[in-house]
Amino acid sequence: MYTLHYSPGTASMVVHLALLEIGAPYQLKLVDIDKREQFDDEYLKLNPGGKVPTLIIEGRAVYESGALLIILAERHPEAKLIPPPGTPGRDAWLQWTVFLSNSLMSTYRFWFYPQELGHQESPPDIRAAIQRKIEGVWDRIEAHLSTHGPYLLGKEFSGVDLMLTMLMRWSRNMPRPATEWPALKRQADLVRARPSWKKLYELEGLKEW
Amino acid sequence: MYTLHYSPGTASMVVHLALLEIGAPYQLKLVDIDKREQFDDEYLKLNPGGKVPTLIIEGRAVYESGALLIILAERHPEAKLIPPPGTPGRDAWLQWTVFLSNSLMSTYRFWFYPQELGHQESPPDIRAAIQRKIEGVWDRIEAHLSTHGPYLLGKEFSGVDLMLTMLMRWSRNMPRPATEWPALKRQADLVRARPSWKKLYELEGLKEW
Repeated sequence: MYTLHYSPGTASMVVHLALLEIGAPYQLKLVDIDKREQFDDEYLKLNPGGKVPTLIIEGRAVYESGALLIILAERHPEAKLIPPPGTPGRDAWLQWTVFLSNSLMSTYRFWFYPQELGHQESPPDIRAAIQRKIEGVWDRIEAHLSTHGPYLLGKEFSGVDLMLTMLMRWSRNMPRPATEWPALKRQADLVRARPSWKKLYELEGLKEW
Repeated sequence: MYTLHYSPGTASMVVHLALLEIGAPYQLKLVDIDKREQFDDEYLKLNPGGKVPTLIIEGRAVYESGALLIILAERHPEAKLIPPPGTPGRDAWLQWTVFLSNSLMSTYRFWFYPQELGHQESPPDIRAAIQRKIEGVWDRIEAHLSTHGPYLLGKEFSGVDLMLTMLMRWSRNMPRPATEWPALKRQADLVRARPSWKKLYELEGLKEW
């Protein structure tokens, strides 16, 4: 039994989707970000960074959504979220998982939390630079998917596609959402058609794409 | 036989150190960043982001230093760079590896490449905010190491310590280098005493800590 400390639509989404794909028993605990519950003393004991998600695995608190995706995929090989060890697909899968976590997730933080760059609202030139950086990642992935898609690993869906679609979703109110790139949109359409995606929307009460 | 495309002292360092720890046969190919060779057409075919490192594994180009550390550690279990699957140590190891890659490596980019935020040189308030963010990570890891150290996983060295020491090294010319935190300094001293660290300095021609 896993326990997922989550907040709807945040980085916990990829972990929640992985749990649904696996079909593992789990319970949810809401961290209300509007009430700043991620900074409650009890929660900080689990996750000293004050971020969601945290996953409780056999009584141990583990965080970092990218790491949790790897851990869950590895613990449940029958769900085929990650290719087996020693195969070329595994190397590519790990590369994309770390790439998305490193290049995109961390850059989004500067978009959504300008205070981390010392401002209540980022000056226009910085905002434009962050936007360019995020769009540069879409360009990169578009080039890959349009020749090697429809999924990140090719013809077969895998767990890293959950992370990509979640990150595309975060761009929906940006000046140029990721779904404007055609191969990215095709990938998102495939992932959004999965039962896990629909179930997550019900469970987390999400409305907007 | 692996081939590592590297540049001295950059993110390729953790991959090079892992190869030395493993004792696997490899060859080095220098990417001269001063000559902007990372943007040569030939190199961009291997690594479309124009970054080092790239590791050639059985003829396939793979990148992202954090992913390469996981891949090498997993392919060579006898080197004990990563705890075995299904153990609590493995979860912690993956958490720290993704955390360092996500929280620290990506933030350093904004420190060293202010042009990625739209400026030739970052304004003082932004520079201060990035510095605070990096120092906040040192505070976090210091708190962990001072009670659970001397290594990230406790009493035993593992591959993720190579990544931490590399990232500490990058702060050496910052206003407050990571080695000013005592438990961090102790970890770095232990890693710097390893034969792999000394061998890397010879091979990459590094002088400065």
